[in-house]
Amino acid sequence: MSNPTENKEIRDLSKFDSEIYENISTLIENEADKSLVNLLADLHSADIGEIINHLDFDDAVYTFKLLDHEVAGEVLTELDENLRERLLAEIETDHIANIVDQLDTDDATDIVSDLPEQIKEQVLDKIDKEYSEDVKELLKYPEDTAGGIMNSDFVFVYESQLVKDAIEEVRKNAEEIDHIYYIYVLKDNHELVGTVSLKSLLINPLDKPISSIMEEDLVYVTPEVDQEEVARLIEKYDIVSIPVVDEKMIMLGRITVDDVVDVIHEEASEDLQRLAGLSEEEEFSDSSFRISRNRLPWLLIGLTGELISAVVLFSFEASIAQIIIASFFIPVVMAMGGSSGTQAAIVMVKSLTESEYWIRDSLKRIFKEFRVALLNATVCSAVLLFVTHYFFKAEVYFTLVLTFSLFIIMTNATMIGALIPIIMKKVGADPAIATGPLVTTINDILGLSIYLTLVTIFLIQ
Amino acid sequence: MSNPTENKEIRDLSKFDSEIYENISTLIENEADKSLVNLLADLHSADIGEIINHLDFDDAVYTFKLLDHEVAGEVLTELDENLRERLLAEIETDHIANIVDQLDTDDATDIVSDLPEQIKEQVLDKIDKEYSEDVKELLKYPEDTAGGIMNSDFVFVYESQLVKDAIEEVRKNAEEIDHIYYIYVLKDNHELVGTVSLKSLLINPLDKPISSIMEEDLVYVTPEVDQEEVARLIEKYDIVSIPVVDEKMIMLGRITVDDVVDVIHEEASEDLQRLAGLSEEEEFSDSSFRISRNRLPWLLIGLTGELISAVVLFSFEASIAQIIIASFFIPVVMAMGGSSGTQAAIVMVKSLTESEYWIRDSLKRIFKEFRVALLNATVCSAVLLFVTHYFFKAEVYFTLVLTFSLFIIMTNATMIGALIPIIMKKVGADPAIATGPLVTTINDILGLSIYLTLVTIFLIQ
Repeated sequence: MSNPTENKEIRDLSKFDSEIYENISTLIENEADKSLVNLLADLHSADIGEIINHLDFDDAVYTFKLLDHEVAGEVLTELDENLRERLLAEIETDHIANIVDQLDTDDATDIVSDLPEQIKEQVLDKIDKEYSEDVKELLKYPEDTAGGIMNSDFVFVYESQLVKDAIEEVRKNAEEIDHIYYIYVLKDNHELVGTVSLKSLLINPLDKPISSIMEEDLVYVTPEVDQEEVARLIEKYDIVSIPVVDEKMIMLGRITVDDVVDVIHEEASEDLQRLAGLSEEEEFSDSSFRISRNRLPWLLIGLTGELISAVVLFSFEASIAQIIIASFFIPVVMAMGGSSGTQAAIVMVKSLTESEYWIRDSLKRIFKEFRVALLNATVCSAVLLFVTHYFFKAEVYFTLVLTFSLFIIMTNATMIGALIPIIMKKVGADPAIATGPLVTTINDILGLSIYLTLVTIFLIQ
Repeated sequence: MSNPTENKEIRDLSKFDSEIYENISTLIENEADKSLVNLLADLHSADIGEIINHLDFDDAVYTFKLLDHEVAGEVLTELDENLRERLLAEIETDHIANIVDQLDTDDATDIVSDLPEQIKEQVLDKIDKEYSEDVKELLKYPEDTAGGIMNSDFVFVYESQLVKDAIEEVRKNAEEIDHIYYIYVLKDNHELVGTVSLKSLLINPLDKPISSIMEEDLVYVTPEVDQEEVARLIEKYDIVSIPVVDEKMIMLGRITVDDVVDVIHEEASEDLQRLAGLSEEEEFSDSSFRISRNRLPWLLIGLTGELISAVVLFSFEASIAQIIIASFFIPVVMAMGGSSGTQAAIVMVKSLTESEYWIRDSLKRIFKEFRVALLNATVCSAVLLFVTHYFFKAEVYFTLVLTFSLFIIMTNATMIGALIPIIMKKVGADPAIATGPLVTTINDILGLSIYLTLVTIFLIQ
């Protein structure tokens, strides 16, 4: 039959099926270890991880300790990061070493890298020598690079070998390596020269030389490549795994699509977080203090920015006192500048970070944004003119100045939103900075200044 | 050797290598068809697609017409949607039929579904009967469901067959089906009973019954399941393809991870777009008018909302005229309410749409958001109190009212941001609506009303 970790019942708990969760809570309460072990044995590690994420901390530790090494390792990779850290602090070093030993090198590296320095050394000392060397090697790469997400487990053959040798390699590694999609074909010095899909192995005669069926045009990355770039390549070329090589094409490891799916998700979350001014991803088990600490920095930066807006308004006190109606439209000019700037920034950042963008298009893009800005500013100003005149029945002079201000502010904000990402890219910074609250705040301040300056120039004698 | 479409040079053009692009432009200009065909023959379809996306329309059509059917099909799937539509309008129906005939059923369905009704019929009439039936079947499912992204090409064996029969099936389908990861094991009535990985086929004896090595605990979906849910399952269970079955477990098709990667990307883009108030994704080849039309609806909704804010301010005209300093802090209360509400909404939507959320946690979550709101509101109010008192040297009474207002507004906005997604989920609507400009605008209006009401109550005699 199939191996023990594969043969699990799939109970996707997110479908709000909390029955199992209740059962587990009851079993923990009654310390019914045996029944609990039996129940857990039927579940997929991803589901066990999800349950443990939702248990109280003591129950989480209790349940985790009941898992056997192999399952425990897989469950660890599913836990919220801060829960995992706290939980591992409760587990003996020997036990951690046994668990880590069962994992793929990339997952093992993730877990070991989060351990306190002293425990880390101890764990690395206790696990299999060769495996530990691999993990130490992987620990050198930054977390968000190809090296940081690759694993060193892959199946390879030498270019002089035959199809049957490759199949034999698959057989030998089948137990240890879960996901095998391609066999890598190497020279004697481990230089990568080709790949062969399992499909090719199946359909070709056993005694055919591997070099005659291998794919030689390769998509590969070096370890320092950003994980987002890895994801882009896998997405673009529709592949399920990508080899990682050094600058001499020596094979170092491979990255599989399941890790890339996580990367895409992570990067997308990061974009959303940035836009909302969250410092990092929040997890269910985070405390209120931790969440507050996560959200406060950007709130305080926003507060500072808006206090500068207040200073701007202060400096126009005389104008506002004289034309009180001007203050009623502060929300309009602020919000419209902010929105049009954010729209332009998001679209620009998206094309700067995705494949479709080429530097040679920059100028074209900026002109297009300018035309869009003029169009949208015209429409919105016309609506504002109409409403202010007919509904608010404001003075004609004021109406004209307000409308003209909105036009200038929207055009200006759109161009700022479009230009800042390009400038960031040119100086080598992350263009996405432009989508955060920082730029919205800058647009707020600029918008108010433009508005009140125009009001003062045209309406104050 | 390997098949013609696989053996392409990988020239990832996004690395701002525009040399090839210049060459192609020159060849088009000189109508050097033969050289152009040779140059294109060396490129991967994903790269050709990228180039065509950046050419002027006439050049794009010219280049596309030079591609052979097989490559043309793959390139079509890489093109910006509106360019594809315009380009296909320039191609003869016969040629379209030939191109579509080369594609996987899911890609063929995508392309056929965008054709004008009359052309669609003609194309379906001209392609292979059986294939055309498959495509017609797939056309029935909404684009963003499992049925909409599945394809009907998969390799299967009956449960009574042997490993060698499965290998024979792989061999027979190898040419036609690009990505084969699992063989599906079916009963005579095509009910799905198990899956076998290519790895298992390689390592097991040829005469072993397939039923003895198949995986019976299956992750599967029905065609009406949302594509986002499909992505979540593939991500959670680290799988590379998922079978689609009807309610009687009859096998209909499969979804491969490369399509899911696109889905994850698409959904992430959608979240960002929603947050920025963009109606749909913008593409490089979109005209200024199209882009403007995409951005205007939310700008106009925002304008309407802020005009309501202006009405609120109007109705407090007397208070503002009396306490002019109150108007200087309008940006502060608006922006802080908006930011804290958006932060809460994004975090809540994220956990509502991802696996970690369970209904039973709702109450816990809301309490946690409330505690976070109190913490952040306290810190920001304290900062505001300090700055207003020492820097702006405002009257003590006003300072206290302003600070108290900020506290109430931030707490209120956070709770609104957290609650609206939950309410949406309970009534079956999309929780993500809460992250759009709509809710920010509501928070703007509420924030201003709270602020000016408090100012009027406490400071106006």
